[in-house]
Amino acid sequence: MKAMLPVGTAQLVGIGDDAAVLAVPDGRVVATTDFLIEGRHFRRDWASAADVGHKAAARSLADCAAMGAEPSALLVALAAPPDLPLSWARELAEGLAAECTRAGAHVIGGDTARADQVILAVTGLGDLAGRSPVLRSGAGPGDLVAVAGPLGHAAAGLALLEAGLTTDPLVGEHLRPAPPYDAGPEAAGLGATAMIDVSDGLLADLGHIADASGMGVDLDSGTLRPGDRLIAAARAVAASRRHSDRTGLVTRPAADLALGWVLTGGEDHSLAATFPAGTRLPPRWKVIGIVAGGSRDHGVVVDGQPWAQAPGWDHFSAG
Amino acid sequence: MKAMLPVGTAQLVGIGDDAAVLAVPDGRVVATTDFLIEGRHFRRDWASAADVGHKAAARSLADCAAMGAEPSALLVALAAPPDLPLSWARELAEGLAAECTRAGAHVIGGDTARADQVILAVTGLGDLAGRSPVLRSGAGPGDLVAVAGPLGHAAAGLALLEAGLTTDPLVGEHLRPAPPYDAGPEAAGLGATAMIDVSDGLLADLGHIADASGMGVDLDSGTLRPGDRLIAAARAVAASRRHSDRTGLVTRPAADLALGWVLTGGEDHSLAATFPAGTRLPPRWKVIGIVAGGSRDHGVVVDGQPWAQAPGWDHFSAG
Repeated sequence: MKAMLPVGTAQLVGIGDDAAVLAVPDGRVVATTDFLIEGRHFRRDWASAADVGHKAAARSLADCAAMGAEPSALLVALAAPPDLPLSWARELAEGLAAECTRAGAHVIGGDTARADQVILAVTGLGDLAGRSPVLRSGAGPGDLVAVAGPLGHAAAGLALLEAGLTTDPLVGEHLRPAPPYDAGPEAAGLGATAMIDVSDGLLADLGHIADASGMGVDLDSGTLRPGDRLIAAARAVAASRRHSDRTGLVTRPAADLALGWVLTGGEDHSLAATFPAGTRLPPRWKVIGIVAGGSRDHGVVVDGQPWAQAPGWDHFSAG
Repeated sequence: MKAMLPVGTAQLVGIGDDAAVLAVPDGRVVATTDFLIEGRHFRRDWASAADVGHKAAARSLADCAAMGAEPSALLVALAAPPDLPLSWARELAEGLAAECTRAGAHVIGGDTARADQVILAVTGLGDLAGRSPVLRSGAGPGDLVAVAGPLGHAAAGLALLEAGLTTDPLVGEHLRPAPPYDAGPEAAGLGATAMIDVSDGLLADLGHIADASGMGVDLDSGTLRPGDRLIAAARAVAASRRHSDRTGLVTRPAADLALGWVLTGGEDHSLAATFPAGTRLPPRWKVIGIVAGGSRDHGVVVDGQPWAQAPGWDHFSAG
């Protein structure tokens, strides 16, 4: 793999020694580890090796950005069955390197082993460049809640894949989420009080901020209306389900399906953050709600009400 | 797991946010990732969960020490089948924490997921504290070759386990290797020109230094004679093999078996390093040979000769 991977200036010692050495000039390093496991996080019949590389890198690098850090390096541990084609591993490395390039990071080390499944464990390292880390716990009453990057696109892409509708470009947003990495340090510079990447779904992840901050979050549904692409995808998925549905159950309208993707779909790795009231936000940060104080307000509500459908990843599995 | 793990002063943000933040005061961080996979690196019927935790931590922390760094933190990704007992995971965390304490490090983050096997991917982070990293590539002609920590003990322990001889204390050295972590920074301070941890076997790992440095290594067999414990273990293993051997093949003498463990046994995670000639070494660094320059001398020899037996991990599987 080594020869395929570009070398960064922060990489003082790279692949091939007992360990890598990375420059982190401000004396702190941001570090996170995530699994990507075949059959659970990806399917080799749906995702190319390059797709898997992009997604594996994105998961960890987005976590670095969500702390307010610039992603700087990855360590990639790859376990695979002995019959995994070498070409698959090569394309995986290319996908990892390409997503690192998007983020300004480099692969500096890793490990390989045999296992029954393809398993990636990816460690992301990041550089705060003098900024304070943005935790989940800093949201205060009256703070703006804003998001950078798409919501529900990865979930729509997964539903399209499950329905066999593989030509919609949203499928690509499931296979290769493209986190807005530089929005993380940008938010930190704008004084963000809390931040998280949207990996479990907007309601669930804002719930983590609400819990950690001891606050509530009230979202404005008017700002979260699904766009035309999501509505069209929802119509196609709903039509496909009607077609294949032998139970006679009524299918939810497409608009509800699409709103569900926006509110509960995970894996977009967009960034959700809270900012002091009055903060002037760049256009890519869209205000979607407000932080509500007081212990009775804990949790995330939409237009003041709990969202009717149970959020979560397996939301559509009964659909 | 979080509540069971002690918090270190270098840990600025720990488990529970998108990523951890670790202080690395000299502006560089040493980073390495290693797998520990059930059925390949450990067996749950031989190793307790605490043993697996010790070994998983030791693998990565020893790599940090082998760069001349003080191990400072671990990120632990654990994938397991759904039926893994919670008590097993708890004991694993205790083992990880205990080995971190031996090394002066702390667990600062991780991930969990489901998989068909128990799989650990452990990232170790370390602090060079102003020292230059000690690479594999710096050995020069005439340098002393020295080792800190035991050689062949883990291999003897494995052979005893395979023979069903579980009461010998060497078994514990296979299940819980105890790398001499502080010998790594010590060697860097003494001017070590190259260093590696003995994970694949002494001949193989010194071969990595020889290759990376473009040098040869000549070991003095007189300094590598197996001690009484290894000889006794080899006698017991040899007796067990004779007992169960129905092929009628002659078993090698115990002394040869034990010397094989010393030269080719992996997983002790002792440190092997090269030092300029004349360096006064503390007692725990035992000089075992010399670096020979010149392109015709590449490779590792014992008393000037290639070692007769092919080195490597599966050495005794045909025994």
